Amino acid sequence: MSSMVWSVWLFALIAVAGLAQAAPAQPSLADILDHSPPGDWREVDPARTLYLDLPHGRVVIELAPAFAPNHVANILKLVRAGYFDGAAIVRSQDNYVVQWSQPDEKRDLGRAQKTLKAEFTRRYDASAPFTALPDRDTCAAETGFSDGFPAARDPTTHLTWLVHCYGMVGAGRDNDADSGGGTELYAVIGQAPRQLDRNVTLVGRVLVGIDLLSSLPRGHGDLGFYQTPAERIPIRAIRLASDQPPAERLRITALRTDSASFSAVIQSRRFRQDAWYKVPAGHIDVCNVPPAVRVSGRP
Amino acid sequence: MSSMVWSVWLFALIAVAGLAQAAPAQPSLADILDHSPPGDWREVDPARTLYLDLPHGRVVIELAPAFAPNHVANILKLVRAGYFDGAAIVRSQDNYVVQWSQPDEKRDLGRAQKTLKAEFTRRYDASAPFTALPDRDTCAAETGFSDGFPAARDPTTHLTWLVHCYGMVGAGRDNDADSGGGTELYAVIGQAPRQLDRNVTLVGRVLVGIDLLSSLPRGHGDLGFYQTPAERIPIRAIRLASDQPPAERLRITALRTDSASFSAVIQSRRFRQDAWYKVPAGHIDVCNVPPAVRVSGRP
Repeated sequence: MSSMVWSVWLFALIAVAGLAQAAPAQPSLADILDHSPPGDWREVDPARTLYLDLPHGRVVIELAPAFAPNHVANILKLVRAGYFDGAAIVRSQDNYVVQWSQPDEKRDLGRAQKTLKAEFTRRYDASAPFTALPDRDTCAAETGFSDGFPAARDPTTHLTWLVHCYGMVGAGRDNDADSGGGTELYAVIGQAPRQLDRNVTLVGRVLVGIDLLSSLPRGHGDLGFYQTPAERIPIRAIRLASDQPPAERLRITALRTDSASFSAVIQSRRFRQDAWYKVPAGHIDVCNVPPAVRVSGRP
Repeated sequence: MSSMVWSVWLFALIAVAGLAQAAPAQPSLADILDHSPPGDWREVDPARTLYLDLPHGRVVIELAPAFAPNHVANILKLVRAGYFDGAAIVRSQDNYVVQWSQPDEKRDLGRAQKTLKAEFTRRYDASAPFTALPDRDTCAAETGFSDGFPAARDPTTHLTWLVHCYGMVGAGRDNDADSGGGTELYAVIGQAPRQLDRNVTLVGRVLVGIDLLSSLPRGHGDLGFYQTPAERIPIRAIRLASDQPPAERLRITALRTDSASFSAVIQSRRFRQDAWYKVPAGHIDVCNVPPAVRVSGRP
């Protein structure tokens, strides 16, 4: 692990001392990850990994074709057409979202479409991967994780959808449900705006570098849009990892959310056991479970 | 209202068109606030309002003596002793907290104490103000608002406590429960870290200017501490509003959380009715209800 960079989201690291108190003793997060078997990790597929390169660093996004197949396919077409070359972060709204788009409205879409039918929810069956959380959720009947992504389900309708947690990435749209398509993308940078669930197509999540987006200056126009082009943050490029030469790719592995180690992470987060905590919460929200990610290679 | 600056937290303003769809028709947030009677607003008491002045602007904090009387009294003593003159933001941890303290360890505490007995929870009775939310919470038996602050209650123990929502301010401590006192303060800048509830003494909340804290560069030391003194953001001063000449105070009013207008705000947030939303959430988390604040006067 010497050459690896740990990128567990930092808030996860507040409590790792590992002294037992009340309730069943839990190993610390660091212990769990250090002792997790290799099979509990998955390589994040370069064919659905985007590099969003900003002047101050790289943001890595994992796409979620299982939930938004048409939007993901369309975004890949946009990326390969160079649609986002010269794009910019145009919006930074406190406790809400950062959004980027192509200010040049004449930019060629390549083989992509401007708009698509919404992919807000999808049906699920017993074969769909889902690790349910044991605690109740304010908004949904069930919450948990599906192939790494925070998700919700409704057993009465057999519908499932991705959840607007910190770092999730979605396709902005106008009032028409089918007016999005991936040309305008946003990332959540505040308290989970759960009111957006089932109202926007979520297409993936930021795995590395969300802090490069969340710490941007806020925009002072309506809805946090920057008021002048000069305030915008230029995007150097958005590229697909698998389109880069292997030597230039990051190698990213993520803890499998259907693994025993991930279940242990959830338990350790529900019942904090280090010397600092006095009253373990005993519960956890789906948006408070941190993704555990290992990154190596040139950033 | 012409001379007033609206400072409803911006994410509240995403949806204000006001077209009715399914479910009972709800007025928009803007409608509710525009038509709220003056009696539904309270003047925020200058005797428990702090001005935290940074090089890039002012952060206004309302203290919560009803929940943390000893910590609030101690913080006022620190402020009046000039303890925070030359203090600095020393920590900025993504999706978690920003923290400030006095790097000069020899600084005179005045009549204040360095540490105090914890004020994590307090008993409540029927006289305690509490506007309960109708929706279930992941962590607490009941959540709602007490005199403007997001709070939780447990009817079986008759204990109540403030909740770690975005913008809440707390007194950092070491491992000992009674090792805090207000010399180190933090503000939440990410997904509500509810695991901290009942583990730290919350002392108030940021009413104005949380974006000045949340958009600071992240620290790259352990727990998001800045690695060098040069990275720290200097605090010009922390002062009590009522200690300033009246002409130099901000006049801040906040929507009363026991008012009919506030109940209408909650309903409008649970059932979004404008043209953009397709599926109203029908539920709301205590940390997704925005404080509605009006500010006038010199900032």
